[in-house]
Amino acid sequence: MAFTTFQNKIIRTLRVKSENIPGVLGRFATTVGDLDGRFGDIKTISVGRQYTVRDMDVEVDDEAHLERILAGLRRLKQIQILEIRDEVLKFHLRGKIEMVSTHPVRTISNLRKIYTPGVATVCRAILENPDFAWLYTAIPHLVAIVTNGSRVLGLGNIGPVASMPVMEGKAALLSQLTGLSGVPILIDSQDADEIVETVLHISPTFGAIHLEDIATPLCYEVEQRLIEALDKPVMHDDQHGTAVVALAALINAARISDLDLHALRIGQIGLGAAGLAIARMLMSYTGRPVLGADLNPDAMERFKAAGGTPSTLDEIMREAEVVVACSGVPNLIKPGMVRKGQVILALTNPEPEIKPSRAMAHGARFAADGRSVNNLLGYPGIWKGALDSRARRITREMFVAAAESIAAQAEEGELVPSPISKRAHREVARAVARAAMESGVARIKLDEDYFHS
Amino acid sequence: MAFTTFQNKIIRTLRVKSENIPGVLGRFATTVGDLDGRFGDIKTISVGRQYTVRDMDVEVDDEAHLERILAGLRRLKQIQILEIRDEVLKFHLRGKIEMVSTHPVRTISNLRKIYTPGVATVCRAILENPDFAWLYTAIPHLVAIVTNGSRVLGLGNIGPVASMPVMEGKAALLSQLTGLSGVPILIDSQDADEIVETVLHISPTFGAIHLEDIATPLCYEVEQRLIEALDKPVMHDDQHGTAVVALAALINAARISDLDLHALRIGQIGLGAAGLAIARMLMSYTGRPVLGADLNPDAMERFKAAGGTPSTLDEIMREAEVVVACSGVPNLIKPGMVRKGQVILALTNPEPEIKPSRAMAHGARFAADGRSVNNLLGYPGIWKGALDSRARRITREMFVAAAESIAAQAEEGELVPSPISKRAHREVARAVARAAMESGVARIKLDEDYFHS
Repeated sequence: MAFTTFQNKIIRTLRVKSENIPGVLGRFATTVGDLDGRFGDIKTISVGRQYTVRDMDVEVDDEAHLERILAGLRRLKQIQILEIRDEVLKFHLRGKIEMVSTHPVRTISNLRKIYTPGVATVCRAILENPDFAWLYTAIPHLVAIVTNGSRVLGLGNIGPVASMPVMEGKAALLSQLTGLSGVPILIDSQDADEIVETVLHISPTFGAIHLEDIATPLCYEVEQRLIEALDKPVMHDDQHGTAVVALAALINAARISDLDLHALRIGQIGLGAAGLAIARMLMSYTGRPVLGADLNPDAMERFKAAGGTPSTLDEIMREAEVVVACSGVPNLIKPGMVRKGQVILALTNPEPEIKPSRAMAHGARFAADGRSVNNLLGYPGIWKGALDSRARRITREMFVAAAESIAAQAEEGELVPSPISKRAHREVARAVARAAMESGVARIKLDEDYFHS
Repeated sequence: MAFTTFQNKIIRTLRVKSENIPGVLGRFATTVGDLDGRFGDIKTISVGRQYTVRDMDVEVDDEAHLERILAGLRRLKQIQILEIRDEVLKFHLRGKIEMVSTHPVRTISNLRKIYTPGVATVCRAILENPDFAWLYTAIPHLVAIVTNGSRVLGLGNIGPVASMPVMEGKAALLSQLTGLSGVPILIDSQDADEIVETVLHISPTFGAIHLEDIATPLCYEVEQRLIEALDKPVMHDDQHGTAVVALAALINAARISDLDLHALRIGQIGLGAAGLAIARMLMSYTGRPVLGADLNPDAMERFKAAGGTPSTLDEIMREAEVVVACSGVPNLIKPGMVRKGQVILALTNPEPEIKPSRAMAHGARFAADGRSVNNLLGYPGIWKGALDSRARRITREMFVAAAESIAAQAEEGELVPSPISKRAHREVARAVARAAMESGVARIKLDEDYFHS
């Protein structure tokens, strides 16, 4: 998932009883904030005459951080911590997805239409005209979410089964946000041939192939071979979904800073799957080369092959007007390296290459970190638009259209819209479908109703 | 699917306007019945002072048969056929399944529990203790419904995509009847190695592997190799699901006929995937060999290897007290071949080897055809019981337990219960889970609540 090379935040729910006097909640929140904790939802459990009980979600770096915050809270006289719960696991009980019937059978006559003998009519119709599979099967809304679990979150190569919660999260959100059906496919192999052949063999089942959390350089070969072999869209989300959202954020960062992205010198620090994809997207979008730096010589070779200009961290910080960092290294950018007027997106999670406040304090014109750039904004709308237009593949134009749609929907001063807004994903889908039609990869022409209903 | 070597019935919905005088609907129904049409649901659309309009589902063999019935109906003065619709396709629009989120995300705090960063907690938990995958992922309720489309209904080798409507039907009913999640997996290959390797590579995704509509002898090799390689249940439904339901029907046929199935001479006509599996199930259930006949010498070899006694159609009809036929050949059994007192299950659909009424008229003690024996009764409860008990594989005892549970639930005089009764499937699941525990393949011990709640 996006920009993340390690990911060790934990979330706890504190049940807190506080006196009904003004300012208590404020003191609580101030204490948590001063100690670098992050609030989530607050739910009121009961309101009495003297006391109120609330459940408060708090996000912290680790157990030691939690202890520091708890110690701080225990010094507040008017509140009492009744319970500390880890509710995250509870949210994942029985997993997060299920396959359901969209035509529940109520009568035997109904059964005979849905199942045998009626279903034979549908099989025969598809046999005679394969296009009917678009109408009478779930294939055009099934998206395989394929992983071998070789590069998951910050956890690394944890294998297929332990990566299932991430794939289910992708599928659950795809369903909720667009109505498409994501199907996790865990592949027990680290070998490109095996992965490619497995996906090819099962590919008739799906309208699209979403690759997720596959390590470099395996991900490049797998994606490229699948794109070449299949007449349906294939996308490695860690590369392109991430690049789309980063481009959207940069478009708005430039707008907020009153700069023209096409005329700026851009540097990319970190050229892993996400970094390289961002650099390529920016070069394609601006038509100009990007400076790039990575300690891995193979990554640098790939970057050069993509038309990038090899550089170093120091040179980028000195010369680039826009810096995008997804290096996986917290605090890589020292305050003294910030150049006056620079736009900086430091995207490594949870600790960025430089804190935005610190970058601004040292002269940056604009700075943001990965928290404000959520890659969940990319793939749902991209898949919906690609499948609605029956795109044969995903073109660069479709990615750029997605990025521009995301950028256009951000509220004033923000880089991107809320990732759980269905409306935002619908707009992205429309932009992507239109771009598919315009770039000649759509199998059907959607009418204006699709774009305006 | 069960017992079916060809399947050409079609279903039409007639919109009929009839005068409000007594007996009109009766004359309509009599006309359809006399011409061998079969009624499905009847829905009243409007009731006026003089006329009533109804939608009537009628199932016929083919277009010519439909024309004969329409001609008969047009001779009835008091009714008028307003419209003839093919509604089957409509029921399959957009397919019959979708993947949905079971934990919809409402807030960003919620998102951070379900998705990143919270999901890392779950991944880490599974990495440390793989058993947590049973609790915190969908894997234990995901069942792969795998086919290469090489033997679908009566349609033969129609390939993976055209077989999707059948796989979706299986998945939709599995969901509706048990809450499990069936995931169609269409494999574009006719090669055992490729199919086995593909399923093995994606097997971490699923709690169980359901094989469907794979031709003989490919199905035998694929099933056997997967059973040996995997530590999770694998079942080819056309064999074992069908055999379970046939055994259930025979248990009740013997009971209705006041006979002891264990003491009878049984003959199996037709030794394809279903026939051979039924013969094996009966031999295992009764502890005695079964007579078997098939024109395919390979099928006869497999039957002999399974301990069966090679025989012929004529000999079986002469010597067996119980005859099960799934030959795919309509009217194979001539009335003169029926022996007095015989129990006959003629299971080929839609036209059986001998009509039950004709067999009874020629001396059979009991006869039934495939319409009263629906193989939908088997797989949902088998999968639910196997997965609830976390069975490592499916044993013969689990199949017999399923058959006995199905048999025990039939109403007086019927062979099997309604296939769309959730209660029936729950009882089958309990019987299967108990048998899994007793035969030592269950990973967990279910408590008595499971069996009685």
